[in-house]
Amino acid sequence: MTDLHIGEHISRQYNEELEDIRTRVLAMGGLVEQQLKNAVQSLVERDTELAAQVILLDHEVNAMEVAIDEECTTILARRQPAASDLRLIVAVIKTITDLERIGDEAERIARMASRLSEDGRSVKLVTRIAEMGQHVREMVRGALDAFAHLDTDKAVEIWDRDRRVDEEYESLMRELMTFMMEDPRTIPSILETVFSIRALERIGDRATNICEYVIYLVKGKDVRHTRLTDEADDA
Amino acid sequence: MTDLHIGEHISRQYNEELEDIRTRVLAMGGLVEQQLKNAVQSLVERDTELAAQVILLDHEVNAMEVAIDEECTTILARRQPAASDLRLIVAVIKTITDLERIGDEAERIARMASRLSEDGRSVKLVTRIAEMGQHVREMVRGALDAFAHLDTDKAVEIWDRDRRVDEEYESLMRELMTFMMEDPRTIPSILETVFSIRALERIGDRATNICEYVIYLVKGKDVRHTRLTDEADDA
Repeated sequence: MTDLHIGEHISRQYNEELEDIRTRVLAMGGLVEQQLKNAVQSLVERDTELAAQVILLDHEVNAMEVAIDEECTTILARRQPAASDLRLIVAVIKTITDLERIGDEAERIARMASRLSEDGRSVKLVTRIAEMGQHVREMVRGALDAFAHLDTDKAVEIWDRDRRVDEEYESLMRELMTFMMEDPRTIPSILETVFSIRALERIGDRATNICEYVIYLVKGKDVRHTRLTDEADDA
Repeated sequence: MTDLHIGEHISRQYNEELEDIRTRVLAMGGLVEQQLKNAVQSLVERDTELAAQVILLDHEVNAMEVAIDEECTTILARRQPAASDLRLIVAVIKTITDLERIGDEAERIARMASRLSEDGRSVKLVTRIAEMGQHVREMVRGALDAFAHLDTDKAVEIWDRDRRVDEEYESLMRELMTFMMEDPRTIPSILETVFSIRALERIGDRATNICEYVIYLVKGKDVRHTRLTDEADDA
């Protein structure tokens, strides 16, 4: 799956430090994925309590980012990592930034869900929004799996799924616009829905960022701003 | 202004490498600021040629990010920086990510400007959008100035200006919503404007991120997710 051997160091403690960082990134990713799941659920099921919980837990995501960031800086200073270890640290610093921003988007969705259900306003197209949310969540989980197993094939596969999410976004946008034009009184509540699906679309983009870091980590090659499917052929 | 002395190393070449990275970040920032200026101008003046130019130049912003990123990784591997040098490198890696995403938002605004003017649709509230764009641009420039001079007072001042931009965003949103409700035929074009001002609001957020990295760089203290005005009192 990969020819990268992280963890073959003379110092056992250094090994453990690197392993610890990876474990903590995955724990942070797990929490972010849960936040995303709950945010979408609070939106489609009009569940204000669940929305409040998502908003409340965002500070935990933030605290995890700051803690992992500090650990990375400490390792850079004390261990002076080279080659694949260095790439791991750089990839982690970037990954946790995206995870934290995914958490922010989930919090935004929860806030919109909360406003909508407090005003007793309905959310249009809930089934399809729930579906899009599910697809975006699968992307986040897949990107984290690719990171956990340093699996570039998986990274490319997940990266590729962003197209479907973009199509779902475009199609939902067109229909929401039609609803607004047919009944202008629905504009304020539909706009909240519009921003929610836009947040989902952005989360999909961030999942693809994480996939790109995985490829950089394994191959030592920066694939951002290139066509990733060509990269897959090289794999 | 700051007690940080970057650039006092035994190796002259190492000094030059660190200086070179800072220069390149500022050059990238200058280009991004220009992109933002042109994007807003293309929107308010319905200038499709200018919009096309912004879209075309986005790849240059991307290329600059990748190049600086590589230089940072090389320095981390070869020089094994410690203390303030290490914080500089980490702050640069984070700053260029935000600059690149500001470039993406500028490109999005240019694409919306292009669609609007091709369809011969008008943009509502242009003067106030231009004003908001100007304020956001001042934030980006100020954040880069704070980075250039390692000026934490300036960083806190710019960070604080984000509140005004958020207020402008909220106020414009309310009015745009009223326009849509009064004349539903305007919904598609006004939605493009809504997304444009939301992109501006996001750029303001990214400028505050850069301010936070400056404080981290100078004080060695992570101020993200804290109330920055308290930090200012410590300064």
